[in-house]
Amino acid sequence: MPLVDIQLIKGVFNEEQKREMIEKVTDTMVSIEGEAMRGVTWVRVQEVASGEWGIGGKPLTAEMVKAMQTGG
Amino acid sequence: MPLVDIQLIKGVFNEEQKREMIEKVTDTMVSIEGEAMRGVTWVRVQEVASGEWGIGGKPLTAEMVKAMQTGG
Amino acid sequence: MPLVDIQLIKGVFNEEQKREMIEKVTDTMVSIEGEAMRGVTWVRVQEVASGEWGIGGKPLTAEMVKAMQTGG
Amino acid sequence: MPLVDIQLIKGVFNEEQKREMIEKVTDTMVSIEGEAMRGVTWVRVQEVASGEWGIGGKPLTAEMVKAMQTGG
Amino acid sequence: MPLVDIQLIKGVFNEEQKREMIEKVTDTMVSIEGEAMRGVTWVRVQEVASGEWGIGGKPLTAEMVKAMQTGG
Amino acid sequence: MPLVDIQLIKGVFNEEQKREMIEKVTDTMVSIEGEAMRGVTWVRVQEVASGEWGIGGKPLTAEMVKAMQTGG
Repeated sequence: MPLVDIQLIKGVFNEEQKREMIEKVTDTMVSIEGEAMRGVTWVRVQEVASGEWGIGGKPLTAEMVKAMQTGG
Repeated sequence: MPLVDIQLIKGVFNEEQKREMIEKVTDTMVSIEGEAMRGVTWVRVQEVASGEWGIGGKPLTAEMVKAMQTGG
Repeated sequence: MPLVDIQLIKGVFNEEQKREMIEKVTDTMVSIEGEAMRGVTWVRVQEVASGEWGIGGKPLTAEMVKAMQTGG
Repeated sequence: MPLVDIQLIKGVFNEEQKREMIEKVTDTMVSIEGEAMRGVTWVRVQEVASGEWGIGGKPLTAEMVKAMQTGG
Repeated sequence: MPLVDIQLIKGVFNEEQKREMIEKVTDTMVSIEGEAMRGVTWVRVQEVASGEWGIGGKPLTAEMVKAMQTGG
Repeated sequence: MPLVDIQLIKGVFNEEQKREMIEKVTDTMVSIEGEAMRGVTWVRVQEVASGEWGIGGKPLTAEMVKAMQTGG
């Protein structure tokens, strides 16, 4: 049953990181709900286009998020 | 009012099948809610990228779903 | 994989009708995607509070939808 | 906290209009919730592919919406 | 077509404010998309339980948001 | 930016477990995206009523999920 939707801005994370999110968030959920629930734990990644996610009215781009990640 | 969101993995179903889902799921909803509700029954198809829908932590690809459909 | 979210206004449909929606929409999806997909076809019902679903800026209540259903 | 998701059909609105939606919907929300909430007000634009949004079972395309906008 | 989902924490805004959000966000959308689209512009309010919306891992309650609104 | 929505059936998990999900899933996300992103990482819990989440057309209740958790 649990369904987890991870929503990101396109272009910030690569395929490897998105796969890691699916794996690790599933493991985290299973550690709380019990191993028997693993098979029905669904985790999805959904991406919003760069520039179409606004914070305080200012559109955030993938570049801005990357700068933020490195403390830029 | 009813809004129905059909969420699929990209690359599993073709345009014809997605149109069929919109038509038939609308008809099914209308058979329960009453014909008068047809005009305000919205049915949408949304697709998640292949490999970004995990079950039990394992990313599902369009190919894996197609194999499953044919009992593979 | 397919996940179908049926979104309704609370108070319009009873338990029996919501169960019927889950069953029949699942059957409709399976008729298109193939019987092998039944076990991974998830259909959920989600309800928005009466008065919190606006069309053209006018909040729709459960009573208004019921009147619409009977052609009122 | 408030999160606002604006869902559109792809190809109807251009980049400029989508940026305008993010800005103006944020301003509208802030006018109700108070200026102190601006920094935690998130507004996103999400697009559904043309032809994958059905009204009454009929798929709506970007062209149909554009004709509707000009009263066509 | 446009569907706008306004997501809030339960207990922060009263009925009057939520109605105002539906009305004004609809007007804002119509000012960009054109008056002809008013009838197919849907705006919904959805509420998450107090304490079930985490920012940086810390659950936000309705009280915390209200304190934030008044600059508390 | 990342927004994570954890969707559960109401009545399966208690307040303590839901708080744990918010905390641990945030930590998991931050371990991949970088500590600088913690403040803009939002994790929410959303619950669907017992009996309104169908798998293969059969409505799942909180009791059924609990039996599943203990291998019942």
